[in-house]
Amino acid sequence: MVKKTRYQDLDRLRSEIRNITLDIIAKVHRRMELAEQIGSIKDTLNIEIEDEKVEQDVRRSVSELSQTLGIDPAFSGRLLNMLLMESIRLQQIQQRPGDVHLRPTHLSVFMKAKDLETSGKKIIHLEVGEPDYTAPKKIKKALTESYDNKHYHYTDSRGIVSLRQAIARKVGRGIGADEVIVTAGGRFAIFSAILSMLKPGEEVISIEPSWPAYREFVDFAGGKMKILSTNLEEKWNPDPRRLDEMIDHHTKIIILNYPNNPTGKVLDKKNITRIVSMAKDSGLYVISDEVYSDYSFKKFTSLAEYKYDKSLVVSSFSKSCAMTGFRVGYGIANKEIIDKMARVQAIAMTSVAEPMQHAALAAIDYNSTGNVKLIQKRLGLIAEKLQNMSLDFTTPDGAMYIFPRLKGLIEDDATLVEKLLDLGVAVAPGSGFGQNYRQFIRISACQPEDVLEKGLEVIQSVLFTR
Amino acid sequence: MVKKTRYQDLDRLRSEIRNITLDIIAKVHRRMELAEQIGSIKDTLNIEIEDEKVEQDVRRSVSELSQTLGIDPAFSGRLLNMLLMESIRLQQIQQRPGDVHLRPTHLSVFMKAKDLETSGKKIIHLEVGEPDYTAPKKIKKALTESYDNKHYHYTDSRGIVSLRQAIARKVGRGIGADEVIVTAGGRFAIFSAILSMLKPGEEVISIEPSWPAYREFVDFAGGKMKILSTNLEEKWNPDPRRLDEMIDHHTKIIILNYPNNPTGKVLDKKNITRIVSMAKDSGLYVISDEVYSDYSFKKFTSLAEYKYDKSLVVSSFSKSCAMTGFRVGYGIANKEIIDKMARVQAIAMTSVAEPMQHAALAAIDYNSTGNVKLIQKRLGLIAEKLQNMSLDFTTPDGAMYIFPRLKGLIEDDATLVEKLLDLGVAVAPGSGFGQNYRQFIRISACQPEDVLEKGLEVIQSVLFTR
Repeated sequence: MVKKTRYQDLDRLRSEIRNITLDIIAKVHRRMELAEQIGSIKDTLNIEIEDEKVEQDVRRSVSELSQTLGIDPAFSGRLLNMLLMESIRLQQIQQRPGDVHLRPTHLSVFMKAKDLETSGKKIIHLEVGEPDYTAPKKIKKALTESYDNKHYHYTDSRGIVSLRQAIARKVGRGIGADEVIVTAGGRFAIFSAILSMLKPGEEVISIEPSWPAYREFVDFAGGKMKILSTNLEEKWNPDPRRLDEMIDHHTKIIILNYPNNPTGKVLDKKNITRIVSMAKDSGLYVISDEVYSDYSFKKFTSLAEYKYDKSLVVSSFSKSCAMTGFRVGYGIANKEIIDKMARVQAIAMTSVAEPMQHAALAAIDYNSTGNVKLIQKRLGLIAEKLQNMSLDFTTPDGAMYIFPRLKGLIEDDATLVEKLLDLGVAVAPGSGFGQNYRQFIRISACQPEDVLEKGLEVIQSVLFTR
Repeated sequence: MVKKTRYQDLDRLRSEIRNITLDIIAKVHRRMELAEQIGSIKDTLNIEIEDEKVEQDVRRSVSELSQTLGIDPAFSGRLLNMLLMESIRLQQIQQRPGDVHLRPTHLSVFMKAKDLETSGKKIIHLEVGEPDYTAPKKIKKALTESYDNKHYHYTDSRGIVSLRQAIARKVGRGIGADEVIVTAGGRFAIFSAILSMLKPGEEVISIEPSWPAYREFVDFAGGKMKILSTNLEEKWNPDPRRLDEMIDHHTKIIILNYPNNPTGKVLDKKNITRIVSMAKDSGLYVISDEVYSDYSFKKFTSLAEYKYDKSLVVSSFSKSCAMTGFRVGYGIANKEIIDKMARVQAIAMTSVAEPMQHAALAAIDYNSTGNVKLIQKRLGLIAEKLQNMSLDFTTPDGAMYIFPRLKGLIEDDATLVEKLLDLGVAVAPGSGFGQNYRQFIRISACQPEDVLEKGLEVIQSVLFTR
């Protein structure tokens, strides 16, 4: 008897769910029609497509509705984000050069420069963060041995245990091998973390100017990027009160990157502590991209010091050991986070190539002091030349770049980048690091001094010689 | 005056879009409540969670509604799929061992076997598709040279041009280097293709039994997998009429894999032609995973022969050259598809490790005939032993596996896999290749004959000795 009633309930509920499903689909369709109409009116009136104020109003209404109906505000906010951005991932992959969305980046300039080289042009590469010096000598033997020992098989998706143990030992702080994952570059560490932490529609806070990849990852995951801008006047210090205001129900992750690419900023411990404490209060993940930590010219504070269980520290062999093309990076986090990242890596590629892992293992005790001094000396040289041009910039606390503001004849990065490429010098456009930085360029110190000098002379002539 | 009206229109539309947005969110919330109630009643009544018939009914209603309202049926179907599977990607990454969803696979058995080995147990590996022979000798020199020549930098996301040219030359058929992408294993080729072709909610058809990764990719992309089952009785031939019936508005991709993992089936040209022609008629992408093509013991037809512009042929150095751990595979498709895949690879890892690309280049002309003969001989040995046990299977036309149906004391793959592991033999459970194959196991021929014989003796004793 009870069972029969249950079956009747089931039928009733199924019929209701079917009707409501049809209703939702009709409404979403109507919503798209309205959005199109609004778009075409905006076109006529010549208003920008994205309209932050209107979006904020809708958000507020949705948040109020959630309270009234007792809907989890995180859920409704997420759903709203999904409605606002139908399938960003595909838009991102399918975007063509020339699309407004596709800003020039250090990478697109690099590709263009490579093309020019193929056609015979000589290029001075000041655009890309690839050390020009040699990878550790021990690696050569490690490569030969990886062949002789048949170390070319699938490995644990987290990496071979010897390398994970060695990384854990190097990082210290009582970290175990289970809290380490070896990834296809620091890039894949952050990619896999964001894909395993972020639901579509959830939000990530990033501090700009920043490496453009963070936004790519968030777009790819169907998430929404919120930007905390910093500026030269405030010495690239993020405003903690503004950060506090930005955190809401939909925020899931904060990304830090110090020493910073492109500014070279190293944040004081006090500021890091404050940010970590805000993240703790709101239960947010913190991803700290510390690939330049060896290149710190002042006291550097790693996120690892805080032992916060929702944190991920990312580093790599690329910059310290001049091993960019080996594609070996790593993440440090609690086992649960590591296992989720490993699952993404397992799905995408099974594991990092085993010979590359052995190469990294051979480089684990490499002393990078010489490289670091070299870069610091070169940055000094670049700084001097830029000062002579009276360009404004902050002296880098770390990393391998200087991020000056343009003045003189050209104050727009895209125009300058193009003119310089014509003259055989590649630099990274500021707008690649955030749309507020069109007046900046990034100059990389990954070339010998005489090459840097030549490149800077060309920059000076373009900026100041009529 | 006109402008003022326009602004009024804008305000009216904005107000309408806000109201409709709130309505959608309230309805989706209500829908989730209903789904939960249905779930708990099903729990009480002990009915399976997924209910294909009910889902089909809802689909039909949605399709009718779309016609009535003039909504693009592809759009409404996709939206429905999104509602039906809230964020599959995260469920998939967050699933724990023990979850019903998590079927045992050759990979999970491999991991378990590795753990047992670490604790001192001897294991005969019949579960994994890793050739036991040596990678081509030329590779050793290539590795050393990649160090000496400083070939360890970021490369074009599609791979170094010399390797792409060499692959194009090998594939022939007038293919150019722009129609080739070098990927982190054949796995990443298919992963990146599916992520760049499939919108959330769209459908992929796969023929089972199959490599479990295809489903992982589709889940990861938020798509829906539709299965065309094949069976031993029909010699693993897919029924083209059933395939034809399965294709609808939401279908986007068909995945082929011949020589097949796990059955060793090679499909006749006639059947391939029929499938390609159906795909053409419906404008579907066809992804053909041909990583075992060198291991064909009968005439093999590559998808590349059809010159279909929505096709992707995937292959790899892993199986032919015993280079699994180098993680180098490749995709062949038109430039537009290649560029989208390259964009995914650029986002995830910039490029494949450069030394691994040079290793692959050194192996490009490797003659795999010896390896192929070896595997064929071993498969013959396995077949003979299985025949002696009177197990049913088809003699493989290719690949490196035999897929017998169990009989005797144990007809359930999970139980057998566990018993065998206790006795030091690892085999791949049939259910990892599709839920209809719990009565099967996959035996891999990647061990020397004496090891295979030992392993098969243990299998025989467990199946037939009381």
